[in-house]
Amino acid sequence: MNIVLAPDSFKGSLDAPHACAAMEAGLRRVWPTATVRARPMADGGEGTLDAILHASGGAAARDTLRVPGAGGADVDAAVGLLRECGAQVAFIEVAQVVGITDAAAMDVDVGARSTAGIGVLMRALLDRGVRDFRVGLGGSSTNDGGAGMLAALGVRLLDAHGDPVDATPDCLARLDRIDVASVDPRLAEARITVLSDVDNPLCGASGATMMFGPQKGVPQSRLREYDRTLERYAQRAEAAFGRDVARQGSAGAAGGLGFALQLLGAEVACGADVVADLIGLDAAIVDAAWVITGEGRSDAQTLRSKAPFIVAQRARRGAVPVTLVSGAIDPASLPALGMHFAGCFGLPHGPSDLAACVANASAWLADRVEQVARVFAAGRHGAHARAAL
Amino acid sequence: MNIVLAPDSFKGSLDAPHACAAMEAGLRRVWPTATVRARPMADGGEGTLDAILHASGGAAARDTLRVPGAGGADVDAAVGLLRECGAQVAFIEVAQVVGITDAAAMDVDVGARSTAGIGVLMRALLDRGVRDFRVGLGGSSTNDGGAGMLAALGVRLLDAHGDPVDATPDCLARLDRIDVASVDPRLAEARITVLSDVDNPLCGASGATMMFGPQKGVPQSRLREYDRTLERYAQRAEAAFGRDVARQGSAGAAGGLGFALQLLGAEVACGADVVADLIGLDAAIVDAAWVITGEGRSDAQTLRSKAPFIVAQRARRGAVPVTLVSGAIDPASLPALGMHFAGCFGLPHGPSDLAACVANASAWLADRVEQVARVFAAGRHGAHARAAL
Repeated sequence: MNIVLAPDSFKGSLDAPHACAAMEAGLRRVWPTATVRARPMADGGEGTLDAILHASGGAAARDTLRVPGAGGADVDAAVGLLRECGAQVAFIEVAQVVGITDAAAMDVDVGARSTAGIGVLMRALLDRGVRDFRVGLGGSSTNDGGAGMLAALGVRLLDAHGDPVDATPDCLARLDRIDVASVDPRLAEARITVLSDVDNPLCGASGATMMFGPQKGVPQSRLREYDRTLERYAQRAEAAFGRDVARQGSAGAAGGLGFALQLLGAEVACGADVVADLIGLDAAIVDAAWVITGEGRSDAQTLRSKAPFIVAQRARRGAVPVTLVSGAIDPASLPALGMHFAGCFGLPHGPSDLAACVANASAWLADRVEQVARVFAAGRHGAHARAAL
Repeated sequence: MNIVLAPDSFKGSLDAPHACAAMEAGLRRVWPTATVRARPMADGGEGTLDAILHASGGAAARDTLRVPGAGGADVDAAVGLLRECGAQVAFIEVAQVVGITDAAAMDVDVGARSTAGIGVLMRALLDRGVRDFRVGLGGSSTNDGGAGMLAALGVRLLDAHGDPVDATPDCLARLDRIDVASVDPRLAEARITVLSDVDNPLCGASGATMMFGPQKGVPQSRLREYDRTLERYAQRAEAAFGRDVARQGSAGAAGGLGFALQLLGAEVACGADVVADLIGLDAAIVDAAWVITGEGRSDAQTLRSKAPFIVAQRARRGAVPVTLVSGAIDPASLPALGMHFAGCFGLPHGPSDLAACVANASAWLADRVEQVARVFAAGRHGAHARAAL
């Protein structure tokens, strides 16, 4: 019996490899000798690099580069390096450079945070000969529309007097025009793929600022002002690059970094789909009897190309049942989730608060998977017994 | 595909028939045409009479008798009447007469509450020719050691001056001797069976007062005093009846009513086992593919002959898998429960408090059973697909 475990991270409690370990511990109590294949998933955000490195089995090398973080102080950012058809490919996880979990950067006002470090990182990789970039968006602390990255790659941001403007939300308010004449020429040979699970545009009611600004520290009272600054910046940038991308899906990802990367010609891919391919999910599933996936919290958003949904699609293609075991399930979304999963389960055994769920995540995930596995085994056993008649 | 639903009540939220209805609603979303057999269970306590009447399909008649409640005010107590081998059998549910859910009785101090109504009820049934009593204990508000019932059946409780003593905890402190000369002579021909899920003795650290007194309103400071009163009463009563039953299991059930009934020669039976027989559980299970049981909260006590445990034993005998879906599961008891159930599940989908679990019990029970059924179906389907290869 082969079982595939392909959860995303349980945000706030377990990363995906630890979620796999807890799930496996639960399964082993039911089937001590089953073949369990752990395929930690990710959706382009935090954990994507680990998932890819974990799955490559040494084919991808992990390297660390020192670049400016969102607040200006240097951070050590891990990247993944892989040869594909003879060419070097670099995996960048935006959260490694300008992540919302960087406490030092979060101490700096969001109006002064910048994605410059992403541009610095790409330049260093261009120096090493990399021309193929896969950039996992998500989990960023910035709201600069990717202006910092563009500036670090040679784009000039100027005010009405022709003086340079800092690439931060606070300073972009003074932006008058954008000069792309001195952009790094090696980018013309580069292929950039954006991995994202967000399909928001750059601006407006469902844009980067309105949707994700508050969690990054943009005060409610200043949301419209931040949004208007990005709108103005986007008009200038689109004119300068001759590309109309602010309304594209994923333009609003990572505080607008998705927009800036698309100005540079990036293609957008579903993060979880790319990760699924990279970790060889289909091959793991093909002869499996069962797949288990999960995430921190599942709701209607899960069905918008989040990792568990992509796992469900792959499993369905292989005609293998897939069960969802998450930290919590939104009961109102059960009818929709039920169309895609053979059972949806949260972690609690009874009344319990969020802190208890987080503190017991590993133990309760093992317990829950064990209990679900006992039901699966009962279904199999009964059917076998009947087939033998 | 036949599925048997045999939950106990979910105390505080759903009676057993409503729990069955919610479970069936969940199952129907997965298997619209399955044969679903609802067999609401009980363990001798509250709900036992309904379970028996529900299962008898009209063979048992429900009758109502007006008798004194625990606080003295009359209550309408339902009883079940059935002919068995030509003889009349009466089912008495103690909670119908001296139930802890009787708000009027609970306003009377526990020291003044009495089981007299049980004796009055038995006398009325003796008048009708009943000589076979099945008495479901549990859910009582009394702590009188069954003295009230004995007095109503003709037993005389006397003080040191030979004056009668009221059969309440407060007055029993003055008890000096017990005279059984005028006990109702028809009891000699009667057969009494006590249905109980409690194996506590009458007195001592695990006796009726210490274990169940506080929930009936006995102040912590007076627990020892109440216990000593019952101890004294038991010595006199055992001497008078010539029976040594205070240390028997179930003597401490229903505030010591189990003791008094055993003085009258009652046999003790496992409540859930008797109910399982009466509702024809084995016949329902014999060709079933799956059994689902449950209760309000499952923990180590569940394995001490509670209804779900008895259901699990019956299902195991029939080699049918049985899954436990309760309001809550004690995580620490999962290893022990896991030996008996093919999966144990509580109701919450994520962090939630008790009030939310109670308010949503019906909807969440349907949801949970649906999700568990999807896993069971996945297990069956996979096994079938493989058997077809």
